[in-house]
Amino acid sequence: MASRFLFLVCLAVTVFIALASDPSSLQDFCVADPTGSVPVNGHVCKDSKLVVAEDFFFSGLHLAGNTSNPAGSKVTPANVAQIPGLNTFGISLVRIDYAPWGINAPHTHPRATEILTVLEGSLQVGFVTSNPENRLISKVLQKGDVFVFPVGLPHFQHNVGTGNAVAIAALSSQNPGAITLANAVFGSKPDISAGVLAKAFQVDKSIVYNFQSKF
Amino acid sequence: MASRFLFLVCLAVTVFIALASDPSSLQDFCVADPTGSVPVNGHVCKDSKLVVAEDFFFSGLHLAGNTSNPAGSKVTPANVAQIPGLNTFGISLVRIDYAPWGINAPHTHPRATEILTVLEGSLQVGFVTSNPENRLISKVLQKGDVFVFPVGLPHFQHNVGTGNAVAIAALSSQNPGAITLANAVFGSKPDISAGVLAKAFQVDKSIVYNFQSKF
Amino acid sequence: MASRFLFLVCLAVTVFIALASDPSSLQDFCVADPTGSVPVNGHVCKDSKLVVAEDFFFSGLHLAGNTSNPAGSKVTPANVAQIPGLNTFGISLVRIDYAPWGINAPHTHPRATEILTVLEGSLQVGFVTSNPENRLISKVLQKGDVFVFPVGLPHFQHNVGTGNAVAIAALSSQNPGAITLANAVFGSKPDISAGVLAKAFQVDKSIVYNFQSKF
Amino acid sequence: MASRFLFLVCLAVTVFIALASDPSSLQDFCVADPTGSVPVNGHVCKDSKLVVAEDFFFSGLHLAGNTSNPAGSKVTPANVAQIPGLNTFGISLVRIDYAPWGINAPHTHPRATEILTVLEGSLQVGFVTSNPENRLISKVLQKGDVFVFPVGLPHFQHNVGTGNAVAIAALSSQNPGAITLANAVFGSKPDISAGVLAKAFQVDKSIVYNFQSKF
Amino acid sequence: MASRFLFLVCLAVTVFIALASDPSSLQDFCVADPTGSVPVNGHVCKDSKLVVAEDFFFSGLHLAGNTSNPAGSKVTPANVAQIPGLNTFGISLVRIDYAPWGINAPHTHPRATEILTVLEGSLQVGFVTSNPENRLISKVLQKGDVFVFPVGLPHFQHNVGTGNAVAIAALSSQNPGAITLANAVFGSKPDISAGVLAKAFQVDKSIVYNFQSKF
Amino acid sequence: MASRFLFLVCLAVTVFIALASDPSSLQDFCVADPTGSVPVNGHVCKDSKLVVAEDFFFSGLHLAGNTSNPAGSKVTPANVAQIPGLNTFGISLVRIDYAPWGINAPHTHPRATEILTVLEGSLQVGFVTSNPENRLISKVLQKGDVFVFPVGLPHFQHNVGTGNAVAIAALSSQNPGAITLANAVFGSKPDISAGVLAKAFQVDKSIVYNFQSKF
Repeated sequence: MASRFLFLVCLAVTVFIALASDPSSLQDFCVADPTGSVPVNGHVCKDSKLVVAEDFFFSGLHLAGNTSNPAGSKVTPANVAQIPGLNTFGISLVRIDYAPWGINAPHTHPRATEILTVLEGSLQVGFVTSNPENRLISKVLQKGDVFVFPVGLPHFQHNVGTGNAVAIAALSSQNPGAITLANAVFGSKPDISAGVLAKAFQVDKSIVYNFQSKF
Repeated sequence: MASRFLFLVCLAVTVFIALASDPSSLQDFCVADPTGSVPVNGHVCKDSKLVVAEDFFFSGLHLAGNTSNPAGSKVTPANVAQIPGLNTFGISLVRIDYAPWGINAPHTHPRATEILTVLEGSLQVGFVTSNPENRLISKVLQKGDVFVFPVGLPHFQHNVGTGNAVAIAALSSQNPGAITLANAVFGSKPDISAGVLAKAFQVDKSIVYNFQSKF
Repeated sequence: MASRFLFLVCLAVTVFIALASDPSSLQDFCVADPTGSVPVNGHVCKDSKLVVAEDFFFSGLHLAGNTSNPAGSKVTPANVAQIPGLNTFGISLVRIDYAPWGINAPHTHPRATEILTVLEGSLQVGFVTSNPENRLISKVLQKGDVFVFPVGLPHFQHNVGTGNAVAIAALSSQNPGAITLANAVFGSKPDISAGVLAKAFQVDKSIVYNFQSKF
Repeated sequence: MASRFLFLVCLAVTVFIALASDPSSLQDFCVADPTGSVPVNGHVCKDSKLVVAEDFFFSGLHLAGNTSNPAGSKVTPANVAQIPGLNTFGISLVRIDYAPWGINAPHTHPRATEILTVLEGSLQVGFVTSNPENRLISKVLQKGDVFVFPVGLPHFQHNVGTGNAVAIAALSSQNPGAITLANAVFGSKPDISAGVLAKAFQVDKSIVYNFQSKF
Repeated sequence: MASRFLFLVCLAVTVFIALASDPSSLQDFCVADPTGSVPVNGHVCKDSKLVVAEDFFFSGLHLAGNTSNPAGSKVTPANVAQIPGLNTFGISLVRIDYAPWGINAPHTHPRATEILTVLEGSLQVGFVTSNPENRLISKVLQKGDVFVFPVGLPHFQHNVGTGNAVAIAALSSQNPGAITLANAVFGSKPDISAGVLAKAFQVDKSIVYNFQSKF
Repeated sequence: MASRFLFLVCLAVTVFIALASDPSSLQDFCVADPTGSVPVNGHVCKDSKLVVAEDFFFSGLHLAGNTSNPAGSKVTPANVAQIPGLNTFGISLVRIDYAPWGINAPHTHPRATEILTVLEGSLQVGFVTSNPENRLISKVLQKGDVFVFPVGLPHFQHNVGTGNAVAIAALSSQNPGAITLANAVFGSKPDISAGVLAKAFQVDKSIVYNFQSKF
């Protein structure tokens, strides 16, 4: 009995440590092991003998995302969470759908530069440079246009056409991460203290409370 | 006169050393300077005060490439050569058009993993693992499907549908490079000696000469 | 005359291309050349024979910064802009002074993790994780305490003691960059369109205009 | 019984996940653990207390390899598979023996630049640059000569002397990988479709079948 | 019985392989798991859901170290061994205390550049460049002064004031390592043979034995 | 006249800034430009159109080095200083000759791991781990044996055979650097103060002066 119990502990511990993948590849590929234990920087690898074509495959980027939400946009990712074969390779894709006048709100990717191309519609896009300039570099894109958002800089897209818009974007990380600024600042769990935000935005605390109540 | 001559030498030397950009970004951006002198690993940067939105912009990925060539395919790149703002950022895009039964012949990218999504048509795609297995990992893709080609491994696409096919692919380098294997082996300038290729492909030199005559 | 004019153009071109330094060191040191021309990723190097101890030196981190500003804080940097010898080495320091109840407003460093130690006073510090959790990880620090802010994540410090506070922080880049979120979002030059920000913060445009007027 | 069965599953799972090593070293050394479980990018480390001199040691590079094979050459590796202490260190060695007129057929290393020195004999060596130039850069080497093959580019060696030849080469990876082009293209398992190869090499499918039959 | 025994072996093996963390972060953070099994390059990660503020925290850099030792100095580290949240982030801190005329003896950090600021007292500091110049670059620092010691180069600090001295230094690695040269050369376990050291230092073996007896 | 003078200044400035090469390659190759101006991290590149096979070539590793010196050894390098084509590639070679009982004195490479193979003779080799263990890991090598010296750790070789010995070693940098410990500590220019060294080696200053007089 004790042995069985100990075994289960052992198994649980092993399974618990769900593995992550690592920087720049050291073999032909290191497919992320979805059943992996042991969390590492990135993901551990599936046994290469068991790797199949489906590990490098994802389906569905032709499907429109549901934009029925306050922002009027939807991001459909194809990164290491969807394609285990991307592990260690420093690249991923997303499809972004925009309702008319929808936005992809100002956000940063802490670990990736983004390059976006418009498949349909018209998008105003822009990014802001770091302190002290905080210069906005912005442009209206049409179908077939391409734009670059440098790593770590706040950026956004805005559908300025009359119909839906669609874009495909590539990111220079298999796990780029995203920080939507309004949500992170006013919607963190728990809240950042209203005193800090009131000073940062140079407003009354009551306005901060109002903002925080929406996220 | 001597002074003018020397000046022109100086100017020529300066202009000659066309600058290249470097790995992983050390400032918000380092836009490649098209008029730059001094060749470095990558490209030198344009003065950041002179940077404009167009430096991060490219137009034309909605246009079909001309596939009237023996391979029946055309790659339209959007890398640092087209978008100077990609310099130091480790990412780029291409559009690939395929005539019916066109191929993107077996090739490698020495500096990038590729992630491809099909916009139209049906593609058989595959890559080959390194020695000694040389395993082919392959799949037929439809519209909206995504597939990954690991860095440095030979890979290809083949239009197996009845109409044209179109794909967008992202590469994990601003300057990924490409080596089309048939061309590099049988069409290098000058030729690799027929004796080497005859041994490598286990055929008569006459067959090698025949191959070489086509490239 | 023509020769003199051309020379001046040549000189201007040469001087214009102010050089920047590069990632991970490839020689004992590559001291940034303050008079360098040719902008690269990072900075070009001073001739190593002319390097002196002062190139690795900076004075003044014992001096209190002037906190007479709306945030009630002041950051005194010691990075590659102040210490040319830091070029290529991936590290820098800052001193931060806080008036009573002063804040270092929520910001990100696109190229650095930060480790901070409190020399005087009490600071509430915190950082917010990426989407979708946006979890606030926060703590009150006393003299001698140390805290880590992961690369790219929004973070802040808040003087919660009754007197001045002082901290020394190290950053994992010689040029870490900083993006103060309120300023970048509401104070960019030119402004991000009010429509985008109204949707992002789920408020009326009039409130956005009010915010923008303060930055 | 169930407990024993579960234990065996647990043991199998643990042993199965054979660990791999990682990029750039983060401690004095991370000797690859030959009995390691958990596959990572690279290899997991042996307990540093159990590390011995033999972990950094290999014997036999003075022994001639057996060149009785169609290529007339033999590569004897000393990489992380033979020397666990190379794990995370980005370097390895090989000895290459060449029968008279033997070749080391055109191949690429997806993860390493190679630097070769001739110990005995005369070798014609060369590499081919990427598209569109596909320039062959080539030279005949004698005893004591050194040559460099850039990462990812196709290269070969050919014994052009009258006797045996021997070389020592170093590679900039502990696990450089190799892709022999003829074998990967015509000898993959399963085969690349003859239609693709016929188009790529601009020949009839019958010739492709003939090539494929040899590998 | 056999099953229980085998289970314990399995558990021991699993626990034994204490995990280490990896280079450049691939997620928001990868807090080192103190109870982790499986040694990797760096450390494995704690389950991110279990991460708490204390994982990024350390206390005590305000406390003077005990300098009652032959060198008259004490280094108090705050690296990944003390702060698991530093894992993968490439930065750490130390506090160094110096008795009057105490030294921090010549040493190297194999994996980090150091930037030091003086909190109290006067320090003569210096580093030596590599062969063949072996140039000493040195300076006397006062309170508030900052100095840089490039990665891998021998360096030292010497209290040249009349009272105690205190410095805070940052290092560009979460696990920088240190090699005190006198100790490594004359105090290794086992000893480097006296013949080697006699030749290296151009002295009699008897002097070498004398040196070795002190370490 | 003024114009000629200004031209010469311009030329001097241009020539002065002798360029250095950068980390990990961003094109097929970036051959170091021996006539380059502008010093960067590493070296600037020669125009790729002018690159020739000789840029990747070096001759002479078959020639015995002159071991008539106090150490009884001679290192013949083949790094980026001798082979400009190695620029950005992270690898180099050396040949080491040892007179009977000659040594390659304890030294570190700040930027490279070394892998050595013995071509002739018998060598005792070893390296010392970092603080606090300072463990000596050592072995006697014969012809054909291979040994690894981890990056940044002090190591040495000692000819323990009766005749000459010869080794070829590869290093994981195109510019590995070397710091011979005895020379750097006792032979720096200017001297490290005798007070520091007396404390570090726990001896009288008079002994330090004696040591310093020999270097």
